[in-house]
Amino acid sequence: MKTLQLTGIGLESLRFADAPEPRPGPRGLLLRIRSASLNFRDLAIARGEYGSFARPLVLGSDALAEVIAIGPEVSRFTPGDRVCPTDTPDWISGPPDEASLRRRLGGPAPGVLQELLCVQESEAVRAPAALSDDEAASLSGAGVTAWQALNPLASLRAGQFVVVQGTGAVSLFTLQLARLAGARVIATSRSRAKLERVRTLGAEHLIDSAQTPEWQREVLRITDGRGADVVVDVLGGAELARSIAAARVGGTIVVLGFLAGPSAQLALPAAITRCLKIVTSGGRSRENFQDFVRAIEAGALRPVIDSVHGFADAQTAFARLGAPDLFGKVVIRIAPRG
Amino acid sequence: MKTLQLTGIGLESLRFADAPEPRPGPRGLLLRIRSASLNFRDLAIARGEYGSFARPLVLGSDALAEVIAIGPEVSRFTPGDRVCPTDTPDWISGPPDEASLRRRLGGPAPGVLQELLCVQESEAVRAPAALSDDEAASLSGAGVTAWQALNPLASLRAGQFVVVQGTGAVSLFTLQLARLAGARVIATSRSRAKLERVRTLGAEHLIDSAQTPEWQREVLRITDGRGADVVVDVLGGAELARSIAAARVGGTIVVLGFLAGPSAQLALPAAITRCLKIVTSGGRSRENFQDFVRAIEAGALRPVIDSVHGFADAQTAFARLGAPDLFGKVVIRIAPRG
Amino acid sequence: MKTLQLTGIGLESLRFADAPEPRPGPRGLLLRIRSASLNFRDLAIARGEYGSFARPLVLGSDALAEVIAIGPEVSRFTPGDRVCPTDTPDWISGPPDEASLRRRLGGPAPGVLQELLCVQESEAVRAPAALSDDEAASLSGAGVTAWQALNPLASLRAGQFVVVQGTGAVSLFTLQLARLAGARVIATSRSRAKLERVRTLGAEHLIDSAQTPEWQREVLRITDGRGADVVVDVLGGAELARSIAAARVGGTIVVLGFLAGPSAQLALPAAITRCLKIVTSGGRSRENFQDFVRAIEAGALRPVIDSVHGFADAQTAFARLGAPDLFGKVVIRIAPRG
Amino acid sequence: MKTLQLTGIGLESLRFADAPEPRPGPRGLLLRIRSASLNFRDLAIARGEYGSFARPLVLGSDALAEVIAIGPEVSRFTPGDRVCPTDTPDWISGPPDEASLRRRLGGPAPGVLQELLCVQESEAVRAPAALSDDEAASLSGAGVTAWQALNPLASLRAGQFVVVQGTGAVSLFTLQLARLAGARVIATSRSRAKLERVRTLGAEHLIDSAQTPEWQREVLRITDGRGADVVVDVLGGAELARSIAAARVGGTIVVLGFLAGPSAQLALPAAITRCLKIVTSGGRSRENFQDFVRAIEAGALRPVIDSVHGFADAQTAFARLGAPDLFGKVVIRIAPRG
Repeated sequence: MKTLQLTGIGLESLRFADAPEPRPGPRGLLLRIRSASLNFRDLAIARGEYGSFARPLVLGSDALAEVIAIGPEVSRFTPGDRVCPTDTPDWISGPPDEASLRRRLGGPAPGVLQELLCVQESEAVRAPAALSDDEAASLSGAGVTAWQALNPLASLRAGQFVVVQGTGAVSLFTLQLARLAGARVIATSRSRAKLERVRTLGAEHLIDSAQTPEWQREVLRITDGRGADVVVDVLGGAELARSIAAARVGGTIVVLGFLAGPSAQLALPAAITRCLKIVTSGGRSRENFQDFVRAIEAGALRPVIDSVHGFADAQTAFARLGAPDLFGKVVIRIAPRG
Repeated sequence: MKTLQLTGIGLESLRFADAPEPRPGPRGLLLRIRSASLNFRDLAIARGEYGSFARPLVLGSDALAEVIAIGPEVSRFTPGDRVCPTDTPDWISGPPDEASLRRRLGGPAPGVLQELLCVQESEAVRAPAALSDDEAASLSGAGVTAWQALNPLASLRAGQFVVVQGTGAVSLFTLQLARLAGARVIATSRSRAKLERVRTLGAEHLIDSAQTPEWQREVLRITDGRGADVVVDVLGGAELARSIAAARVGGTIVVLGFLAGPSAQLALPAAITRCLKIVTSGGRSRENFQDFVRAIEAGALRPVIDSVHGFADAQTAFARLGAPDLFGKVVIRIAPRG
Repeated sequence: MKTLQLTGIGLESLRFADAPEPRPGPRGLLLRIRSASLNFRDLAIARGEYGSFARPLVLGSDALAEVIAIGPEVSRFTPGDRVCPTDTPDWISGPPDEASLRRRLGGPAPGVLQELLCVQESEAVRAPAALSDDEAASLSGAGVTAWQALNPLASLRAGQFVVVQGTGAVSLFTLQLARLAGARVIATSRSRAKLERVRTLGAEHLIDSAQTPEWQREVLRITDGRGADVVVDVLGGAELARSIAAARVGGTIVVLGFLAGPSAQLALPAAITRCLKIVTSGGRSRENFQDFVRAIEAGALRPVIDSVHGFADAQTAFARLGAPDLFGKVVIRIAPRG
Repeated sequence: MKTLQLTGIGLESLRFADAPEPRPGPRGLLLRIRSASLNFRDLAIARGEYGSFARPLVLGSDALAEVIAIGPEVSRFTPGDRVCPTDTPDWISGPPDEASLRRRLGGPAPGVLQELLCVQESEAVRAPAALSDDEAASLSGAGVTAWQALNPLASLRAGQFVVVQGTGAVSLFTLQLARLAGARVIATSRSRAKLERVRTLGAEHLIDSAQTPEWQREVLRITDGRGADVVVDVLGGAELARSIAAARVGGTIVVLGFLAGPSAQLALPAAITRCLKIVTSGGRSRENFQDFVRAIEAGALRPVIDSVHGFADAQTAFARLGAPDLFGKVVIRIAPRG
């Protein structure tokens, strides 16, 4: 079977290789990967900027697959089922612990950019029936991250204000899920054009952070001085202080990324008097993925897809992650249905 | 000022009387009641079937009022503000305790069926700006009860299944709030006509419980055998056992009423193996009312109003609560704007 | 290897049989069972009063075992480790679902009353080092049940009042764990002698329910009319109404058993005005077992052991469960260390 | 009545003055302050280093008082009751909001360093009967802060590891409350002598942070590499990064102070992969104070008192807060019993 292997550092070290067909264990599933989608993590690993994993490494954590064979003790799935593998396979349910976060698809564990993959039956969820293969391949990383942020972590409720930053995939899913849950969304972006696009996804208030770098003041104005209930921060760096200033007393800041820098300065006196919860989150549980699928099915939510590429054009797909007009998920069709 | 007093037992003992104009204390508000709405509790107290409160008693707990004067230490409101008094005035926030539940508008404390009422500033919430006076008068009893059931009590999330029973005001608000939060609603009713009306409010699955008295089986069928995440039970009696059977493993049954009887039989072995949460709820906090108002404003939710009556026709309004085609809140205009 | 098999109905159908030595799968552990302890569930299954499981069946869910071999992919344990198998093997962490509760050691899955047992590495916890094999064999059923009741379910805090009923193993563990957490314990029993024994375990208030059948009134008196924060109900039947009356407004009743009858009557109006949480619980997660082990290690908690029996005397051990002076766990030594 | 007023900046601006006797409103209590205790906040305000409050200002937020008169509508207390005023009077229960945190005893609201004080009946809790006046005067600031940190904020459970830093009053209460709840305490201090004293209070592991500035490594060693479940950080500054490194995956860091500096650097990638909760907390609710009193009564907890001073020696008492060998609360007797 065909597999795309990262053999060194840089996208030019991605090589197609032939690998033996894997066989499922007693509780295992053999999956044919139909579509996969990329995350910045994949690009960062390829560039050698994230982690240090043994090579050759098959990248990719997000996919839609078809179950084509099962082990004799499998009870949750049958051949023909459309599933998404979970990207943090050992984190099934409940809170995470160190052991459950260690293994990740696409580094250190082999990822989904290959035609076949074996996973345990505990390491997959049933895909939403109404989504296409490309759409269902877009869920497991950014989508479940957004679900976790709003639900178990921030306990979002209808009527609350949620701030989303920029238009990366996590922010777009957060916006869609916040709207689905009856919350009000304040979206920031440095691009006017992208702000117009998030408006059509349901963002009620738009802040052009190129024009208004002190965007937290605008959040306070919109919320009558109270502040947002939830800020989903993907920027980090110097922006985290603004996220904290934008949150209401007793509010939650969920810290998911650090596009603006890996280090943030925290002003303690102000934070202490405002009784904040700053929650960081990495990895995703299967339980949260399943709950997310239920929300998708209830709300007819459709992931935003930026572009779809053939397996042969995987390098183009990776390059697309760096495009300034990127908007949504980048999908690679690995073994699409005939 | 004009006040409607319950002087004995039965609706015929309701009498209009003149009372001296009240004056607010240092932290008090003087309210002009614009509209009020009735609850079954009011009818049951009038009939002598609920509580035993000193007479004469002014009934009524739900109202929209205008602040017309304030005490010198008031900081939360100013004259002209549109507010709803809270019906459990001493329960401000957090979990309830015995002391905070004791005082209730309309028995034992004087209620809203009078032209003027003094409350402490801590005992009112700002009304949603987009609602009419009649609509805003419909929120504080059934509406906040529904909000509490779904949010602090059941921790509802998008994608979950919620069962609502019949078409009383609590069930209608529960249905609307569940939809607003991205949940899926299964509604039961003994009336085909009413089921059609709840469909237009967003109920996805309808069960005619006159035809299907074992409606819990239908809930299991709809949910692929899993059961509902949340059942909001207003029936009690023999129906509670069905609510319990309709809930999923780990699910929540919120018990709010007992229209089908005040006593319920609980089959313990089945309940124990299914790890259920059965939560009862009476009284409502101001914090929950405020959160509910935010959800109304975010979701453009409008209460369902059955009928609007003049103050002089209050007895007709009370009688309407017993009509078989009742659907929504019964409103009385006390001192409508000129 | 030697195994004790239930071949029919009644203790007289328990037979020793020889069985082939099991072999662990890739992620499996081969365990030598050192000591086991019995639960009423085992006795009820033997008598044909609980469930209907295929025969022959090896009973027993609580044990201390030594790991004597491991599969090639095992990472959590090594040979020589002292472990307790988890009695609900598929429930690892977080909230339960139907699938995770289905399999139970000792019915339908083979139990621990045999010399060797294979489990997955995900289905065991490290035993507390300070406990003897007999003590560590006493934890997994009643002990984890008590931990779950007080911690994830009732969110017990120091200073709260906890009611425990009688002196079954669940109640004794609940008492010990409540004390360890700084709570105050009110214990009921129909036996004066047993009340004196629970006093030495830390119960602060004792109620002789033979003398005071309306024991809930005594709970109210002890708590200055407020009621207990947590009632751990193992009686059910007509006693559950008393547990509900003994709880404070906003309190929690955890329903774990039904020694006084499988059906309980619930008076809804009183329950509704008091805002209660009635939580039922069956099965136990590995996460909760691990947290329980940490509490044991921190608090030097030692399980109460009623008696220790040889494997050959297993029938005597089973009979001991029905003795009126039973107090603590009944242990069977299966393959004790040399 | 005698009152100690801060008239300018610096301890030398503290002046005794005579003030008219206050009179309670309809729901008010007139309190005779028996004993008060000081917090660093009082010293920082006196020095002009914290807030900017109008002068003259009566400092002090922690006290034990006797109710000597009540307003006609008071129902919670009667004359003769021993009470502690709450230091954040408008925060009664539930989560905080901006309005409920604004008013604080001892700045901007008048504090307890005077013979008489009027508070609303909602702004006091009954003192633990077993504590002396001096001990009960030591609870409301540091004690309730510690209770909130461990219970509502960190959801501490028996068996968990808690890190406390230094020997300030918050840390000492945290240590005592963690022990009471069955948790294990790791204490750091730069003083060998003080470490020996915290050992007698129940600290299981002691780290001399003068010798081991990278104390977080020692926490990891003690916890077998897992990290502490809860770190209660009162240092902030560069130490916060160590607190974060000392916490387990999924653990909680409660940030209460900034003795080591008001600004902290947060390394986001490490924090994100470890799924942390960083919670800040200022102000204290009456509900939390009441729960804390229950824990004190259950656990026979006694506050650690450094020294007791007469009202006339208040300046000496303030100076004592800066002494290197300070260990426990500094108490001032205002109007002790005859």
